[in-house]
Amino acid sequence: MMKVVALAGGVGGARMVDGLARCLPPENLSVIVNIGDDFDHLGLRICPDLDTVCYSLAGIANPDTGWGRADETWNALESVVQLGGPDWFRVGDRDLGTHLERTRRLRDGWSLSQICRGFCERWGIRVAVMPATDDIVPTLVYTQDGAMPFQEYFVRLQCEPKVTGFEFENVERARPAPGVLAVLKYADLVVICPSNPWVSIDPILAIPGVRVALAGRLILTVSPLIGGKAVKGPAAKMYAEMGIEPSALSVAQHYSSLLSGFVMDQVDAKLVNAIRSEGMDVLVTDTLMKTQQDRQRLAGEILYFADSLRNQQSRNIPLADRV
Amino acid sequence: MMKVVALAGGVGGARMVDGLARCLPPENLSVIVNIGDDFDHLGLRICPDLDTVCYSLAGIANPDTGWGRADETWNALESVVQLGGPDWFRVGDRDLGTHLERTRRLRDGWSLSQICRGFCERWGIRVAVMPATDDIVPTLVYTQDGAMPFQEYFVRLQCEPKVTGFEFENVERARPAPGVLAVLKYADLVVICPSNPWVSIDPILAIPGVRVALAGRLILTVSPLIGGKAVKGPAAKMYAEMGIEPSALSVAQHYSSLLSGFVMDQVDAKLVNAIRSEGMDVLVTDTLMKTQQDRQRLAGEILYFADSLRNQQSRNIPLADRV
Repeated sequence: MMKVVALAGGVGGARMVDGLARCLPPENLSVIVNIGDDFDHLGLRICPDLDTVCYSLAGIANPDTGWGRADETWNALESVVQLGGPDWFRVGDRDLGTHLERTRRLRDGWSLSQICRGFCERWGIRVAVMPATDDIVPTLVYTQDGAMPFQEYFVRLQCEPKVTGFEFENVERARPAPGVLAVLKYADLVVICPSNPWVSIDPILAIPGVRVALAGRLILTVSPLIGGKAVKGPAAKMYAEMGIEPSALSVAQHYSSLLSGFVMDQVDAKLVNAIRSEGMDVLVTDTLMKTQQDRQRLAGEILYFADSLRNQQSRNIPLADRV
Repeated sequence: MMKVVALAGGVGGARMVDGLARCLPPENLSVIVNIGDDFDHLGLRICPDLDTVCYSLAGIANPDTGWGRADETWNALESVVQLGGPDWFRVGDRDLGTHLERTRRLRDGWSLSQICRGFCERWGIRVAVMPATDDIVPTLVYTQDGAMPFQEYFVRLQCEPKVTGFEFENVERARPAPGVLAVLKYADLVVICPSNPWVSIDPILAIPGVRVALAGRLILTVSPLIGGKAVKGPAAKMYAEMGIEPSALSVAQHYSSLLSGFVMDQVDAKLVNAIRSEGMDVLVTDTLMKTQQDRQRLAGEILYFADSLRNQQSRNIPLADRV
């Protein structure tokens, strides 16, 4: 059985990871999660992607939103807002407990990855989930309205400002979290989840040592763009604003030489040859993960695709061959 | 109409204050609240007595417990505990919102009394509620098991250790919060609420300047002990452990020369003469506040008693004269 490492952002990443976890023994899957979205709010350290991945794996995620907790209540936030406090970031009560306990442990000197391990144990998650780094590497979004912290752009301004670029602050001094380089070193397959390339995956790839550790690995990605649109979030809008046509091809070119294989939706089948000519194998399938069954099926197909690539490096699976 | 200032601790204080607020125009009532119980928990600044008083005045207090919020949920705490965090201090979700927003403002440089004013405005409280001080003056409980912070003694250890004394840390350097000395200066009546004399009222009286400002005021108290027992909390236990018989008489002697009048329950009628001989007038009535009607009736009787004392300094109201 292959040792698989997933690189994941939030909702799309969590769905993909959940699918992989349903196909692999837990000891064969590790997840490296983006922490560029992390920020301080109401005095609490909030790690949206890490929590979204963990809640999904623990089976306690809100099935409707993809983020936050199931059976959530909103009384603490209602009380904060009643008192005139900030209302732009939605934190549910159960979710708040995670942030409170994480912040308490950070203050007590725990590292984020230690905290993540402790939480996973409590939540019954047997897959190894780790933040990309224990250092603080906040994503700064450059826009036509100026530079701003990611959550300011993403949540408060609802991705309205036109993006001109990104910076992962202090990333040149960041160190990969314990376990990150080790799991990459022994990975038979790295799956870059269908997360936002600019603000979910690039922040992981920017950490010194990560790209080096990826060299020579079998790396696949699933396009987060389907028919030129993002399933969720501003990825397509970002591509357009950066002067790049939002498409699966642009995603393939984004990662370019990193990739051995590319997984894309059949609505983009016309792009197969263009993507192949980027030097990667292509799997065309249904990539939209609406249900738990979708996640598991897609993960299974990816693992099968990867296996075929390992056995026969140059084999492509054209649309016609799909079962 | 008299200008009234109440000195209040938690549940008993909040009930008395609520009764007074139902009898007086809001501009005629000010409340100085104990902050010796305040502490940091889960990274949040928690002010139990201030919140209990405000929740009561705002009509959002839990009617069953006397502390915390009505219609409360406990999901954040459940989530913290699930992760292995501390479970000994019960914080509800709505209540948590108060602590989050208070802590946020403290970090932004607001003083506790500024925050309290802002919260009161939001909660529609027109009575002037103020913390005794904006300084940090934590109550330390000396016990046979050693000295410990108040909430450690009160909540975590359920008041089990035998008390030998109290310290209000840093109180000698504390300044009364803005408004405290001013409202005392113009008070026609000061009501010491039926709160714990040792740990709810003494911390207020210990703040430099407060006793001086009380000199010459008409001051009444309502005994928190009825039939030698506290309605709530460890007051009676504390008296006994300090070698003093817990009784209304002991409460009268506790405040001694401060008091012009003493309000006590009719079950303690036999102590009237002993208390009178301490040099104070006595009102004997039903002091147990089970319902909102009880609070209002007791407050009305206290105001009437105070008025009679103002008009006729040496008049006593013996049991037989009660309506």
